[in-house]
Amino acid sequence: MIKETFSNKKKLSAELGFGNKNYNESVRFLNQDGTVNIKRKISDKHMGFDLYHWLLSITWLQFITLVIISYVGVNTLFAIIYFGLGADKFGGLVGGASTENFSKLFFFSAQTLTTVGYGHIYPNSGSTSSVSAIESMLGLMGFALVTGLLYGRFSKPKADIQYSNNAVIAPYIDNTGFMFRIANKKQNELIETECKLALAINNLETKKREFHFLELERNQINFLPFTWTVVHPIDDKSPLFGLSEKDIIERDAEFVILIKSITDTYFQTVYSRMSYKPHEVIWNAKFTPMKQTPQRNGGITINIKDIHDYTKVTMN
Amino acid sequence: MIKETFSNKKKLSAELGFGNKNYNESVRFLNQDGTVNIKRKISDKHMGFDLYHWLLSITWLQFITLVIISYVGVNTLFAIIYFGLGADKFGGLVGGASTENFSKLFFFSAQTLTTVGYGHIYPNSGSTSSVSAIESMLGLMGFALVTGLLYGRFSKPKADIQYSNNAVIAPYIDNTGFMFRIANKKQNELIETECKLALAINNLETKKREFHFLELERNQINFLPFTWTVVHPIDDKSPLFGLSEKDIIERDAEFVILIKSITDTYFQTVYSRMSYKPHEVIWNAKFTPMKQTPQRNGGITINIKDIHDYTKVTMN
Amino acid sequence: MIKETFSNKKKLSAELGFGNKNYNESVRFLNQDGTVNIKRKISDKHMGFDLYHWLLSITWLQFITLVIISYVGVNTLFAIIYFGLGADKFGGLVGGASTENFSKLFFFSAQTLTTVGYGHIYPNSGSTSSVSAIESMLGLMGFALVTGLLYGRFSKPKADIQYSNNAVIAPYIDNTGFMFRIANKKQNELIETECKLALAINNLETKKREFHFLELERNQINFLPFTWTVVHPIDDKSPLFGLSEKDIIERDAEFVILIKSITDTYFQTVYSRMSYKPHEVIWNAKFTPMKQTPQRNGGITINIKDIHDYTKVTMN
Amino acid sequence: MIKETFSNKKKLSAELGFGNKNYNESVRFLNQDGTVNIKRKISDKHMGFDLYHWLLSITWLQFITLVIISYVGVNTLFAIIYFGLGADKFGGLVGGASTENFSKLFFFSAQTLTTVGYGHIYPNSGSTSSVSAIESMLGLMGFALVTGLLYGRFSKPKADIQYSNNAVIAPYIDNTGFMFRIANKKQNELIETECKLALAINNLETKKREFHFLELERNQINFLPFTWTVVHPIDDKSPLFGLSEKDIIERDAEFVILIKSITDTYFQTVYSRMSYKPHEVIWNAKFTPMKQTPQRNGGITINIKDIHDYTKVTMN
Repeated sequence: MIKETFSNKKKLSAELGFGNKNYNESVRFLNQDGTVNIKRKISDKHMGFDLYHWLLSITWLQFITLVIISYVGVNTLFAIIYFGLGADKFGGLVGGASTENFSKLFFFSAQTLTTVGYGHIYPNSGSTSSVSAIESMLGLMGFALVTGLLYGRFSKPKADIQYSNNAVIAPYIDNTGFMFRIANKKQNELIETECKLALAINNLETKKREFHFLELERNQINFLPFTWTVVHPIDDKSPLFGLSEKDIIERDAEFVILIKSITDTYFQTVYSRMSYKPHEVIWNAKFTPMKQTPQRNGGITINIKDIHDYTKVTMN
Repeated sequence: MIKETFSNKKKLSAELGFGNKNYNESVRFLNQDGTVNIKRKISDKHMGFDLYHWLLSITWLQFITLVIISYVGVNTLFAIIYFGLGADKFGGLVGGASTENFSKLFFFSAQTLTTVGYGHIYPNSGSTSSVSAIESMLGLMGFALVTGLLYGRFSKPKADIQYSNNAVIAPYIDNTGFMFRIANKKQNELIETECKLALAINNLETKKREFHFLELERNQINFLPFTWTVVHPIDDKSPLFGLSEKDIIERDAEFVILIKSITDTYFQTVYSRMSYKPHEVIWNAKFTPMKQTPQRNGGITINIKDIHDYTKVTMN
Repeated sequence: MIKETFSNKKKLSAELGFGNKNYNESVRFLNQDGTVNIKRKISDKHMGFDLYHWLLSITWLQFITLVIISYVGVNTLFAIIYFGLGADKFGGLVGGASTENFSKLFFFSAQTLTTVGYGHIYPNSGSTSSVSAIESMLGLMGFALVTGLLYGRFSKPKADIQYSNNAVIAPYIDNTGFMFRIANKKQNELIETECKLALAINNLETKKREFHFLELERNQINFLPFTWTVVHPIDDKSPLFGLSEKDIIERDAEFVILIKSITDTYFQTVYSRMSYKPHEVIWNAKFTPMKQTPQRNGGITINIKDIHDYTKVTMN
Repeated sequence: MIKETFSNKKKLSAELGFGNKNYNESVRFLNQDGTVNIKRKISDKHMGFDLYHWLLSITWLQFITLVIISYVGVNTLFAIIYFGLGADKFGGLVGGASTENFSKLFFFSAQTLTTVGYGHIYPNSGSTSSVSAIESMLGLMGFALVTGLLYGRFSKPKADIQYSNNAVIAPYIDNTGFMFRIANKKQNELIETECKLALAINNLETKKREFHFLELERNQINFLPFTWTVVHPIDDKSPLFGLSEKDIIERDAEFVILIKSITDTYFQTVYSRMSYKPHEVIWNAKFTPMKQTPQRNGGITINIKDIHDYTKVTMN
């Protein structure tokens, strides 16, 4: 819920946490995909690196490549150890060339790591038995980590919100309003969806960047089966009141959106964020109502692609 | 907590998120099982499909069938690969007919995928060893996903709320009230249970669908050991005030219930939702008090089936 | 946070959810261990039984016994199937008496279910290979469920609150107060601990059971390193004002305590509940301050057993 | 959100939960790493020991050592049992010296526990088969616990907050302010970060320790991409108003910080806490602004090490 009023001068800046520095060129704090456009550099890399976060946030291709490389790497390593201990310390390896034995020990390692353990090759001495006992333990724990991450990535909660490509300045009641539309891209339901809208804008007098929360006609919705048109009425209390299209470009405005919701898959709270820059705001336009098609089974269908559609209007 | 007052005209519609379109026929937003009766059509299927959500929401029969088909399918696939590489590349496969070998390679695949690895058949060349090394790795990860889903389905938190089959319009203090009863169907305890009640109704003048939150005599309860009779007093501030049974049918009313609670199994927040349509509302009836039977051990027993019972009353 | 004021007559009853029925004998809603002393009887057992909740709430002894019985049972079942298919369909089983073969097939089943698969006995026909392929798959999924439950039981969040054996009515500021003490029994820290205190008491006039929330001097505490003495001041606004020890016995009072906290192990919200009956309330007594022993390392030690100690006082 | 006002005398103490005892020497309630500097002694050790919490909070070195010792220990135990039952009850163990057999049975145990089961040694009697059937079951469940803990440790949510080494008393608006800086040490984003600041200080008159919440210029921030300078303005309502550096040393002050935030990895709520003692507070100093370096890709980089930098200022 939005409780900030900004009546107090000293609270004008930095509520969002982006600081009030006025970069002399256009900056974008939030990328369109919701990631923050700021990097923290941490000199002592070991301290700052969050392996878990990184393994959850890399792409699936990177993750799978990493798993395969690790699997081959670990097996190569153990094959070298086994080979160093001596191929004659293994039952089932009768003579054979060195390269053939190495290859067989590589696969013996894979059979140990995955605990498949066919047994046609087996450790036949204390040293090789010890190493394979360690390897099978490492295998169990390593695969548990990998599969934990795999499931963690798979089940990671997210608010898959579709935002309209543009925000519009449209007629609203007796005046105009700043509007954008959102919809749920997934088949699950989002409940108790809340929205906050903030404006980051340069103050030409103080040469500082200011932040204002924009009051919404409604900031919570119980269900999101169709789309939700979020509306900020541009009345005389609005920081946008009296500003023209040219003004918000000159003052490098950014409209920052924070969405909080609950997915009904596991009743997890999820967050989504996005921002519009002035060139993504269409003036004197309104959103085309979504076409709602009744189905034979009594349900109603919408096409989520219609969310971007708007029509130009003449404003008084 | 319900803070909306609806004193403001522009807030009358769409708080629930169902929009204010007046379909000229009767619509039901929420099915009796709490699912939303609206489908989002997403043209690019790949984008919108949520595999995880789907695997958690299909029935157990569908899930188990899918697991078995996948298991047979993957083993068939690997059997084909092994057979293509050559049955002579396996130890333990002496001669034998092609079909017999294929069948044996199918079971070898199953023994590799599950890592049981008896070893009476084993890969005896680089190519077959490589494929089985891949298969055992895939097996570990695939079964981890399947068992993660299995446990996820098994442990999925839910509010298993039993709603009375009907709501009633019953005498309440000096007037009448809209009432329904809920109980916990499960053996766990539900704590801090909250209820919201909303009314969706067509406005005959504006030809739009309106939404009103209905004030409750009480919207939170700390324990739910027996039943909870949720009461909306129909006083002069109620949107139901003065409406007759005929009115709510004509105006296609829907009473939407949102329940939020915490299960004490894992202290997870869970949600439940339901709706009553006019034909499920009994006028001039009151719920029969639940029979509470003291037990020898000092406890009190109720029969949850009694929750639906009501008796007709004469109203003034 | 406690917001209920009970100034409104119609809100006097049932806030806790225990109903306002006045049983003519003494009842206890909450047991001392926090379980609710009320059973829900559900006729259709299949509907109401929550296997997951049950498996998490049985004792460790019951859980382990169940696992062992299931393990032996499943292996016996598969041994019967394998034996029925024919011991000659297995490699490694040479002749031997029937009982010996059955015993060997029982252990073959165990080796398949756990995927240890030594391979000295192995399925040697399509039928036995198929059944063992099914068994190893079931084994993987079954053990995943069991170990998921094992870990779920092990990691189940709980507020392990030590309550003082008795509550006391002690001098407090200018008057008296109802007090009890709590401490954290575990080595983890509880943060942001909140307390609600309610009084269930028979109304001798209306013959109904009433519920009152009792205002606390403080209802939240940020840390709980020592003990917290929760105090309800018995001032003229208190429902206890003017009541004697005899009164609360006659009127079958029950002091219901609801604790909500966050463990810092995983930052999970946990709940605890307890109740005191009149015979557990000591009148004219105050708690003995906990002895705080400074340690060499700069820390302070308390002995949690002291929490129950009180001394009788003379009241004016 | 901070709602406490402390206008009420009886609320002056103990809100934090540290009690109001004035130890005659300097005490520190919170260590710099956020752990609580108080030990609870519990006489009945079995009752109070929380194995799960302990296994999650020991260091990685301790955890891994424990796993290795357990692995060797369990295998030694089972080797003793197998050896006691007789090496002749195993297939694959032909004659051999006792020590060699014992060593082989040790590795057989490891192969059973990890379910790798090569099978070159296998149980050949009812007794040894039974024990190994139990061992493989224990192995599955034991490794599931270990790997669950491993993943639990790995994925444990935490707010990895970097606090400035010192707090400063710096000029602020028309007066001075107590300030410290925080930043996110990790690559994930912290959203909706909240801060509470409390002061623990001895009251020289009452000889008791008092607690005061210090009002912050701002107590929530939506993003934390850079640093957040938390400011308590020392105006005439502040408990610090009029106190000198000497005063806060004499009165053994401790500034206790409570941070609550949400990580965007899994949208988990995390907590962090820290405290400053008087020798860590620099008077008449202000923080050096963090250097923000624009990058080619449009992002902005900060060096988190700069967070500690301050410069002395002359105060009026």
